[in-house]
Amino acid sequence: KAVPRSAIELRCQCVGTHSRFIHPKFIQNVNLSPSGPHCKNVEVIATLTDGRQVCLEPTAPWVKVIIKAILDK
Amino acid sequence: KAVPRSAIELRCQCVGTHSRFIHPKFIQNVNLSPSGPHCKNVEVIATLTDGRQVCLEPTAPWVKVIIKAILDK
Repeated sequence: KAVPRSAIELRCQCVGTHSRFIHPKFIQNVNLSPSGPHCKNVEVIATLTDGRQVCLEPTAPWVKVIIKAILDK
Repeated sequence: KAVPRSAIELRCQCVGTHSRFIHPKFIQNVNLSPSGPHCKNVEVIATLTDGRQVCLEPTAPWVKVIIKAILDK
């Protein structure tokens, strides 16, 4: 669902969001892009341990929980 | 303070953290890396609007506030 591109790309990078829970152990890193002139959406892109990139829904409670878990670990 | 590298790099990417508040309007994106075998630290790397990358302290309250603000916007 994610279209992996440079963070510098001047348009939205996600064409949809992955809706199912992903266990944090499969997450290598998470990139947060605020909305801005390049894209009206907040974008949350997770890189998984297998290298895949998936877009997550910033408003989903499980996404917030995972981000909090990463910061608090 | 940040050493910009690929997210795939198999070691810590931050050699220190930026301690002063950075206004969210200067933040292009934020990358969160959980701790793991490659690095014992949680790493939070912000790319600023001028392209610079700075490492932020994951436990700093203002860093958590900024991340929350990005997600909630």
